[in-house]
Amino acid sequence: MTDPEPGRPLLRTMRRVRSVRSFRPDPVPDALLTEILEVARWTGSGSNRQPWTFIVVREPATLGAIAAASPNVGHVAGAAAAIVIVMDGGMPEIETFDEGRVTERILVAATALGLASAIGWIMSGGAAAVGALLGVPEGRRVRTLVSLGYPTEEASRPKSAPGAARRPLAEMVRFERFS
Amino acid sequence: MTDPEPGRPLLRTMRRVRSVRSFRPDPVPDALLTEILEVARWTGSGSNRQPWTFIVVREPATLGAIAAASPNVGHVAGAAAAIVIVMDGGMPEIETFDEGRVTERILVAATALGLASAIGWIMSGGAAAVGALLGVPEGRRVRTLVSLGYPTEEASRPKSAPGAARRPLAEMVRFERFS
Repeated sequence: MTDPEPGRPLLRTMRRVRSVRSFRPDPVPDALLTEILEVARWTGSGSNRQPWTFIVVREPATLGAIAAASPNVGHVAGAAAAIVIVMDGGMPEIETFDEGRVTERILVAATALGLASAIGWIMSGGAAAVGALLGVPEGRRVRTLVSLGYPTEEASRPKSAPGAARRPLAEMVRFERFS
Repeated sequence: MTDPEPGRPLLRTMRRVRSVRSFRPDPVPDALLTEILEVARWTGSGSNRQPWTFIVVREPATLGAIAAASPNVGHVAGAAAAIVIVMDGGMPEIETFDEGRVTERILVAATALGLASAIGWIMSGGAAAVGALLGVPEGRRVRTLVSLGYPTEEASRPKSAPGAARRPLAEMVRFERFS
């Protein structure tokens, strides 16, 4: 007989995804990066446009330069790797939604593989600088990166008491009507 | 020894997520809906705003009325249930990204539980009508729903040859620089 609850470990992993911004210097094996990218590749998108290119950055000098080019992505300087998500630059509404979809998958895949991850949201001022640094053609959209690596021991400890980091389900869910 | 590859079934499930729009009439058990909503609840969001309310709709009349109110969400009329994602109506860019994140999790969770799911993207013309139908207060953003149910036998069959539905990884991935 197969596992009677095959989906449960997956659901547990998904509930456990947290932003972790402190990484050990150990590299992320190529095989794990490929597995994460395969999960990203299979993300659904509006009209199946797949409007993305993933730049894998591992050079410490480049990671540091990205961190310096934009406020609030400082964690990428200490990451073992980053995936910079470059969007095609089409219709902003659907493309931003699809960017959220693919980013979420990268976070879940990293968590499933025992890696720490954190979204870096490149502010509009930094996008041009990061784009130039990575040779991204004009017209593409550079906005989201995901820092990856093995977590430091301290970062592995839970930051919030179980249940304290999110609003309770009853407050978020309605049945049939909003009110 | 524990499973040497605990994350792999999750990655496989994620790669397998596909939009399925034909549902059997069987209801979705409450327990499964709750599990999906728990996964949605734990989604990360910008500044941990959790800017969403989930309306679970199971009344066939309401599902049919939603389908009639907006083009291209016709599949919801035949769904056993739908989760309508109501966003708080804050800054569009980050909220649209977060909406993509939470939607993707709902799809993955449904797949892990053996359910079929499909995104319904409510066009701007239909949003007001769907909002009114569900009693959503002015100022909130109604744009995405997810149809849920058990797939019909025909819908369970793969639609594309393995590998044919997405661009190859080599075309999507760059190392260190875009070009």
